[in-house]
Amino acid sequence: MPVESSAPVRRDPKSIDAAIRALTAKFGNRVVTSMAVREQHGNTVTWIKNQPPDAVVFPQSAEEIQDIVRICAEHRVPVIPFGTGTSLEGHVNAPLGGVSIDVRDMNKVLAVHAEDLDCVIEPGITRKALNEYLRDQGVFFPIDPGADASLGGMAATRCSGTNAVRYGTMKDNVLSLKVVTASGELMTTARRAKKSSAGYDLTRLFVGSEGTLGVITELTLKLAGIPEAISGGICPFPSVEACCNAAILTIQSGIPIARIELLDPMQVRAVNLYSKLSLRETPMLFLEFHGTEAGVAEQSERFGEIAQELGGGPFEWTTRPEERTRLWEARHNAAFATVTLRPGASLIATDVCVPLSRLADCVTETQRDIEASKLIAPIVGHIGDGNFHLTILVDRSSPAEVANAEAFGERLVERALAMDGTCTGEHGVGQGKMKYLLHEHGAPALEAMRSIKRALDPQDIMNPGKIVALS
Amino acid sequence: MPVESSAPVRRDPKSIDAAIRALTAKFGNRVVTSMAVREQHGNTVTWIKNQPPDAVVFPQSAEEIQDIVRICAEHRVPVIPFGTGTSLEGHVNAPLGGVSIDVRDMNKVLAVHAEDLDCVIEPGITRKALNEYLRDQGVFFPIDPGADASLGGMAATRCSGTNAVRYGTMKDNVLSLKVVTASGELMTTARRAKKSSAGYDLTRLFVGSEGTLGVITELTLKLAGIPEAISGGICPFPSVEACCNAAILTIQSGIPIARIELLDPMQVRAVNLYSKLSLRETPMLFLEFHGTEAGVAEQSERFGEIAQELGGGPFEWTTRPEERTRLWEARHNAAFATVTLRPGASLIATDVCVPLSRLADCVTETQRDIEASKLIAPIVGHIGDGNFHLTILVDRSSPAEVANAEAFGERLVERALAMDGTCTGEHGVGQGKMKYLLHEHGAPALEAMRSIKRALDPQDIMNPGKIVALS
Repeated sequence: MPVESSAPVRRDPKSIDAAIRALTAKFGNRVVTSMAVREQHGNTVTWIKNQPPDAVVFPQSAEEIQDIVRICAEHRVPVIPFGTGTSLEGHVNAPLGGVSIDVRDMNKVLAVHAEDLDCVIEPGITRKALNEYLRDQGVFFPIDPGADASLGGMAATRCSGTNAVRYGTMKDNVLSLKVVTASGELMTTARRAKKSSAGYDLTRLFVGSEGTLGVITELTLKLAGIPEAISGGICPFPSVEACCNAAILTIQSGIPIARIELLDPMQVRAVNLYSKLSLRETPMLFLEFHGTEAGVAEQSERFGEIAQELGGGPFEWTTRPEERTRLWEARHNAAFATVTLRPGASLIATDVCVPLSRLADCVTETQRDIEASKLIAPIVGHIGDGNFHLTILVDRSSPAEVANAEAFGERLVERALAMDGTCTGEHGVGQGKMKYLLHEHGAPALEAMRSIKRALDPQDIMNPGKIVALS
Repeated sequence: MPVESSAPVRRDPKSIDAAIRALTAKFGNRVVTSMAVREQHGNTVTWIKNQPPDAVVFPQSAEEIQDIVRICAEHRVPVIPFGTGTSLEGHVNAPLGGVSIDVRDMNKVLAVHAEDLDCVIEPGITRKALNEYLRDQGVFFPIDPGADASLGGMAATRCSGTNAVRYGTMKDNVLSLKVVTASGELMTTARRAKKSSAGYDLTRLFVGSEGTLGVITELTLKLAGIPEAISGGICPFPSVEACCNAAILTIQSGIPIARIELLDPMQVRAVNLYSKLSLRETPMLFLEFHGTEAGVAEQSERFGEIAQELGGGPFEWTTRPEERTRLWEARHNAAFATVTLRPGASLIATDVCVPLSRLADCVTETQRDIEASKLIAPIVGHIGDGNFHLTILVDRSSPAEVANAEAFGERLVERALAMDGTCTGEHGVGQGKMKYLLHEHGAPALEAMRSIKRALDPQDIMNPGKIVALS
């Protein structure tokens, strides 16, 4: 069974040209072939270089996406769905060439069903735009990956983020999808009912499939009521282990915590530099509780007691919005702050996820590895889920540095896998993590994934060269 | 595209005999061919008659299940996984003949990870046995379908039950599965990490696949902390619509309700007869709240206010266990009570699920249909999810009655589908609901399901004749 495929081979240039001609005849100047636009659509922040598509098309409807896919299928030309290009593992690169389908113009809210706590949207709308739209209806979409990503892209990568510990990931918040298949048909994965046992779970098969099985053209999403009250705060701890134990005890005792974020001392230092703060450079938890006024006060007080038992604290918290923002400033600015640790360096972002009981070990060993490898790589963790991120600051012009960082990344994944974890908690596979799938899943599961890919995309035109590359 | 398959044809009797001889050589008296045992394993409570397998095997390990599947694959003989036989849509019938794999002896808890709130179990353990085992560790498995089903069967049918409104369904509570594939390989669908973006979601593809893609041999399940406090109570309402509006307002206002169950007046009458109670024969909600002492009191009071606004009440509630049991007695006895409405009749159970905003319409129209059809069919609803059940009481010896009930069942499903609902919220497809899948999902989605089935089970030996029957 060929598990590691050889380097991808570009599809026939004549076929690609023929497809672009057919697309141009249909879509006119909504087909763009300028190198600047193509390179922007081959965006990647991993080790892999930019691999631009041959053309970018800007459809305005599901029917137009069907047309694009049919034209590309006829010529066996790859199609690569594109939302905002904020994915991190080379998901939108075009290693075999092909056509990028940019859904930025499909950004409408089609329906909001407040009584059902759901909404129907096009794939190009971003999460901030959606929440702006929903705000006066008392509901919101809770998944927050940090970047203002498109909802189509968020579903495709099965993303999550800071409040997954309470609200789940994209897999838990997509009720149904419309998807253009590899043969250009429009498929609906499920009805709008909140649950169903009527056959295979196509919705969750497409969530996280990264465009390799079809192109998402519409999403029905679960919504949550905007909480009556929110309390937020920060709490220093003597060690990463104490932070993780606080998360374990909080969850075990049934406190429905909304966010519990770890910043390691290096990340706290970065934020101090960036935001001119003077936080103690020690492992720090940032917390948020959602509920009624009385409920969030009770939750916050209980967390304070847990922190104190573990030698942490004081836990400073508030329900006043401006005060919460001030306390959370360090977390909100973490991504921007990182660059202050090494101005001019490139950022390489990676993530792993392990069972919560192993998180302290995994983070602590990783910190030792960072030190031994002489890397600058602050850690931020969504620790309620056992998920943490590293932002590695490297000089991309130095092959030795890049190799050092890459080797570190491999050790990180091996460490997570050895602890029954996963090579990616929320960034996805893309191109960057393909090489780990055999170790993570084993040959029978990987072969099952390949069988599904072959069954649903026999010509291998849907975002080929990602997840389980066939060619 | 052939969507409706013709009547299933039994596999070659010589091949079946050869497989049973090979199985007997290996498993001795753990292969049983007596008609009593075979019929018990072809259990069904739908319109379809009992279709017993040709033999029943009782394996004790995943390796033994691999052996069974390999022997059956060699002879192209169907294998039908069997847990407790409590499924409702003919899931365990053997329309093509074949071998039932009864996992009753694989009923061990393999590990409990209290810090991670998960456990690893064999598929034959029942939910009550599991919760008995877990009780002194302060955790429980929250999915409660009523019957004391096996966890393997619960995963296979994607079941849910009374507290899905808070804790989700099986799809939300299975972290990982081990599965024997159609070629006899042992596959692991995911690591034990709480979330992952590492490839296609095989776990959720197998949850709800009803044994048609593989045999579940091990499950890693999410657990919940036993709540510090539980309050429960009952609340009468003037109409089904008021009940549904109470559910909508409760969920919209963020009350994390654990159970919200509707009994219609016919079901209340049944319970009054059975349990010698004198409840008002009006639509009635049974509720449960989980949380801290202060939290459940706050939730219960808020619900009481919502009920009053809608003309319901009084809401009688308590946190004392024996009092809760007394108040909930009518709900607990609903299934047994139903038979008192027509002693000697057979029960046919069915379920549908619609968006919450359409539930009142769907239930009310269904009640009118029951009356017009002169059926006895009380309704119980998990109304937080928009899901409701009917138990139709029929005299199976009367073809006219059975036809009347069957026609009613078809109208019920069409009604739910017209409201963007599903033909089954939690019972599954089995044989009974196959005919609705084309209408519910449309041709492209149904063809995708068939492609997946063909890809993972090319010989069509895994529980054939169910969901998307190929032969």
